[in-house]
Amino acid sequence: MTADALKRLAERLEKADNVTILTHARPDGDTTGSGLGLCYFLRSRGIKANVKNSDGFPAMFGYIAGEYKDLDFGEKTVISVDVADPKLLGSPLEEEYAERVDICIDHHKSNKLFAKENFVDGDCCATCLIIFELIKLMGGKITPLIADCLYTGIATDTGCFMYEGTSPAAHRAAAELKEAGCHAAAINRDMFQTKSRGRLLAEQRAIGTMRFSEDGKIAMIAITNAIIDEFSIDRAELDAFAAIPLNVEGVKIGITLKQQADDPGLFKASVRTVSADASKLAARFGGGGHVRAAGCTVKGTLEEAAEQLMSAAKDFV
Amino acid sequence: MTADALKRLAERLEKADNVTILTHARPDGDTTGSGLGLCYFLRSRGIKANVKNSDGFPAMFGYIAGEYKDLDFGEKTVISVDVADPKLLGSPLEEEYAERVDICIDHHKSNKLFAKENFVDGDCCATCLIIFELIKLMGGKITPLIADCLYTGIATDTGCFMYEGTSPAAHRAAAELKEAGCHAAAINRDMFQTKSRGRLLAEQRAIGTMRFSEDGKIAMIAITNAIIDEFSIDRAELDAFAAIPLNVEGVKIGITLKQQADDPGLFKASVRTVSADASKLAARFGGGGHVRAAGCTVKGTLEEAAEQLMSAAKDFV
Repeated sequence: MTADALKRLAERLEKADNVTILTHARPDGDTTGSGLGLCYFLRSRGIKANVKNSDGFPAMFGYIAGEYKDLDFGEKTVISVDVADPKLLGSPLEEEYAERVDICIDHHKSNKLFAKENFVDGDCCATCLIIFELIKLMGGKITPLIADCLYTGIATDTGCFMYEGTSPAAHRAAAELKEAGCHAAAINRDMFQTKSRGRLLAEQRAIGTMRFSEDGKIAMIAITNAIIDEFSIDRAELDAFAAIPLNVEGVKIGITLKQQADDPGLFKASVRTVSADASKLAARFGGGGHVRAAGCTVKGTLEEAAEQLMSAAKDFV
Repeated sequence: MTADALKRLAERLEKADNVTILTHARPDGDTTGSGLGLCYFLRSRGIKANVKNSDGFPAMFGYIAGEYKDLDFGEKTVISVDVADPKLLGSPLEEEYAERVDICIDHHKSNKLFAKENFVDGDCCATCLIIFELIKLMGGKITPLIADCLYTGIATDTGCFMYEGTSPAAHRAAAELKEAGCHAAAINRDMFQTKSRGRLLAEQRAIGTMRFSEDGKIAMIAITNAIIDEFSIDRAELDAFAAIPLNVEGVKIGITLKQQADDPGLFKASVRTVSADASKLAARFGGGGHVRAAGCTVKGTLEEAAEQLMSAAKDFV
């Protein structure tokens, strides 16, 4: 964010009171860390603040949300964090707040600019990094708890500093958050290393379905309802499976098929690529997305869906 | 390293010429990055320098070693990097150099201080971080190639900034190396995400052997010779398997059994723990190691070895 925009945001927050902070539904590390980090900071300045989300705080964020309690006050200012579109507030927050967000703080390029005042930096790798810079500009003290909140969002949105967009500023913030007492190693273990037993076994089964073509340049795995049911894993956990085929040495196009719960004759395909345009491949099946990550749906039996996608993918290697 | 020691090292290097830099055998990212990074830097200062190691540069480090060529000169100064003990030079370098290393630069607490002058910082998370600070102190220019060298060692020795010992200084160095043009995302993909097809499938098979006891607090996997042979994977790749059992949610003690190639009735066990003393568990079988990571060997069939270890582990949960 430009220094000027950040300054305006800081001035706006200095005058705010009785703040409700909204995070997006199915909350991840960045929205949760941003919401709680901002809330704890505002409270430390004597500003009443609460965090609301449609789904509650996931158990995995207990180390930052565990001690959180709502305060009782008449709401005056509504701030959304890491919310690109009011639809993402989910129900019931969308109905209640979509039209009346005062301040939007976000890092998604696709942000709908739906608030009265929008502070969006599409080049910043995490909303938590914006909150970090905001707190520093306002001369706030970063307690170990606030440091844990902000580290969580920066680490999760950069894949523990692994992804392309990880900025020098993200590393410098991590350095300061460690000095402020954040529990980085424990957070990293929870976020990146620990898997549920069901997920590990389901991954193992999915990897067992891996097939290759074009000299190993195309790889595909399939997650069937049978696998999902056998290990009773949450379908939300399946998102991470899309990275598996592309991580095999030599693979240029990785495809993950996921059978749909309500229609076993329908498969969602996630396409990941090293250099080919994934969105063009997905577009052949009516889907879309980004250059390196896209998705579509394909009808048929598993064999039919797999065959159609593998065949189309050959044109892209 | 203390500012004073770093200054002495810098002064020593200013006077050095015709330098041979030694890395350890079975070279990893930190020794390779330190050796090549220091070499390219010295050459940029007009100091003749070569890098030697007993095993050659692994193909995976081609992006920093690909253009490297030996210079022809009469050796005057020998420097080892990331070498804790002259034995680790391997053959033939150990025989040739063990007794005549002039300068040792390392970050292992266990360093044997075998050189004429030893610059060891046991609290530093990577030797590449020492080289980074050295180059900065000497006012050197960090080219994109040198940045790739140093980022490689810092990233690999911190598990991409995931491990406990990752210092604020490591993050600040990463920020500067990115600004200097290092290809962090590509390096991370090669180092942390890409797996050979054989390794992925062998992992899948090993995970299929996972057994639990004590309410899921103890988990064990077994890698048999049958698995290793089926997927023709390099036994060096098996080291990483030791982390798998402990990464399952709720597991406090993770054990990985590896059948020995030359004696199918012998199993090497790697013990990893969240809080129990792994070295004490390993000591019951004549082994040893660290508090969170230790190893031992157990004789018998797979079932017998597994039973002995699972049974002993119960005393530690």
